[in-house]
Amino acid sequence: KAKKKKEEEEEEGDIAQRCRGFMSVPVTDISVLEKRKDEMSTKMEMLIMETQAEFCKALEEVDGGTFKVDKWQRKEGGGGISCVMQDGKVFEKAGVNVSVVFGYLTEEAAKQMRSRGKVLKGKDGKLPFCAMGVSSVIHPKNPHIPTVHFNYRYFEIEEEDGSKQWWFGGGTDLTPVYIDREDAFLFHNTLKEACDKHHPKYYADFKKWCDRYFYVRHRGETRGIGGIFFDDLDSPNQEEVFNFIKSCARTVVPCYLPIVKKHLNDSFTQEEKDWQQVRRGRYVEFNLVYDRGVKFGLATPGSRIESILMSLPLTARWEYMHEPGKGSREAEMLEVLRNPKEWV
Amino acid sequence: KAKKKKEEEEEEGDIAQRCRGFMSVPVTDISVLEKRKDEMSTKMEMLIMETQAEFCKALEEVDGGTFKVDKWQRKEGGGGISCVMQDGKVFEKAGVNVSVVFGYLTEEAAKQMRSRGKVLKGKDGKLPFCAMGVSSVIHPKNPHIPTVHFNYRYFEIEEEDGSKQWWFGGGTDLTPVYIDREDAFLFHNTLKEACDKHHPKYYADFKKWCDRYFYVRHRGETRGIGGIFFDDLDSPNQEEVFNFIKSCARTVVPCYLPIVKKHLNDSFTQEEKDWQQVRRGRYVEFNLVYDRGVKFGLATPGSRIESILMSLPLTARWEYMHEPGKGSREAEMLEVLRNPKEWV
Repeated sequence: KAKKKKEEEEEEGDIAQRCRGFMSVPVTDISVLEKRKDEMSTKMEMLIMETQAEFCKALEEVDGGTFKVDKWQRKEGGGGISCVMQDGKVFEKAGVNVSVVFGYLTEEAAKQMRSRGKVLKGKDGKLPFCAMGVSSVIHPKNPHIPTVHFNYRYFEIEEEDGSKQWWFGGGTDLTPVYIDREDAFLFHNTLKEACDKHHPKYYADFKKWCDRYFYVRHRGETRGIGGIFFDDLDSPNQEEVFNFIKSCARTVVPCYLPIVKKHLNDSFTQEEKDWQQVRRGRYVEFNLVYDRGVKFGLATPGSRIESILMSLPLTARWEYMHEPGKGSREAEMLEVLRNPKEWV
Repeated sequence: KAKKKKEEEEEEGDIAQRCRGFMSVPVTDISVLEKRKDEMSTKMEMLIMETQAEFCKALEEVDGGTFKVDKWQRKEGGGGISCVMQDGKVFEKAGVNVSVVFGYLTEEAAKQMRSRGKVLKGKDGKLPFCAMGVSSVIHPKNPHIPTVHFNYRYFEIEEEDGSKQWWFGGGTDLTPVYIDREDAFLFHNTLKEACDKHHPKYYADFKKWCDRYFYVRHRGETRGIGGIFFDDLDSPNQEEVFNFIKSCARTVVPCYLPIVKKHLNDSFTQEEKDWQQVRRGRYVEFNLVYDRGVKFGLATPGSRIESILMSLPLTARWEYMHEPGKGSREAEMLEVLRNPKEWV
């Protein structure tokens, strides 16, 4: 109850004051945010900035390093804030990116935006849109600390008659190098609890969606042990979906930080480090070959390549015909990637 | 003249005897090759096997290591021979692959095979085809020795009326970590001489095609300093195109080995090694995002992933916002990749 009250206060608090805790001033001018403070785009921009700050600060605390913060502008409208820590004590590469972009889409591009491919009608074929999100990939040094990825995003598009289409998407997923059942349970259970507050089917549905989405077809393996993933979420209503996104965004720290802290001082061998590097290679394969966000970004003129490819690990390895020995912990990991499990 | 005579002798020599020099028995049974020794598919299979053996032996000699040879079969018809040397003294990862596959294509798939997208008519919509080629990527350890790639391939397809469509494709290109004008000249000039024997425009046209093909659009850079690249080559006649392909295949050793030997004992710093690793990352980006062969391979059920991804380096690196210092040798390299040059 106290927590609920605190959250409400935060949201009703002074925008300028909340911005002081962010990694940078937001993409949208504070005066504009204040003027439009009841609009969903403002609420979401505040949430993604908050999520970025919370997560970065938690990582800085455990690493001892600091994030390099780049605020960048997009010529066609909007911009972003990229926070990167490279070669830290704990993290090999940690990136947390916010972007808030707007402009006009063609009807064809608008159709491709939605995974369900709904037809949208624009004024003279052009549709004003606004897209924003926070996304992050954290690659630790120690092979016993898993890689984590999350992304929460909001999309708005205006049709010819002035009506607005909107939807949310997102997810959080874990990519360990070795299986630790306790970690897997904690991670999935934290997500499940967040989902259960909003809909009894969310966790089961979005867990399945996640396993399907992060599938590296040419390897017959999932990228990691999953989590949740969803797109095109637009019901029952905007406020309720936003509350769900907020719950998800607020699980990012409790999903991951306990796992980092638990393995912080785990010792590891060169063989374990090599296996991590091979798994990093697979991570690169997924991101460059299948990831919708990366593909869309690389194909979009004027997109910020460094922020899109921030998700790639600092180092990776491709060994010809790598096959772990029977009964090894590496083989156990592969088995799970080939046959996704229920963890909760 | 003596060389010309030797070549003719080789071709007219006993097939079984020539096979003794290969890395493995060929994909097609020797008895079948002997029976069909005047057919183009036999001549080409012998050429790609010879090219593989010649190149592997030259690399083994300079490295001191030996290639691991895998002969593999394709369920749907044909197979291949993959030769890989990993973690050698000179080469971090060297792969030389031969594949000879056959079966049936749908009309749609057949159309996609040709870059010009010609419509082909099959019996009941199915077209018997045969595709074969040799391809190789060599990643050395020393950052002063460039990466090389080549691929020579032949394609045959039978239409409804029994007529055969055929064409050749291929190329050789160099990816240095630092610019060495002497190396660049030797490499391009050796290719130019091979081209000039067959057509005065081949080198200029195929050099341009190469720069266009190996372009990493999202970086605004070419993958390396190019070489030659061509596809759909089917004129003036089969014998003449085959002779051109043979000339190209026989330049592989003289294009590359002198460069390897020249830099064999070059000393290098950790900074130079890091820059090599960053360039390797870009190599991965091209191969996974743009390369037609890789994309086609990954999307084809039943293809041998390990042979397709053999081209990826053993190790690679992605640094956020990497930008070489002004006037540095790294900046000089980037400048060339951003503005392809004439080397001959």
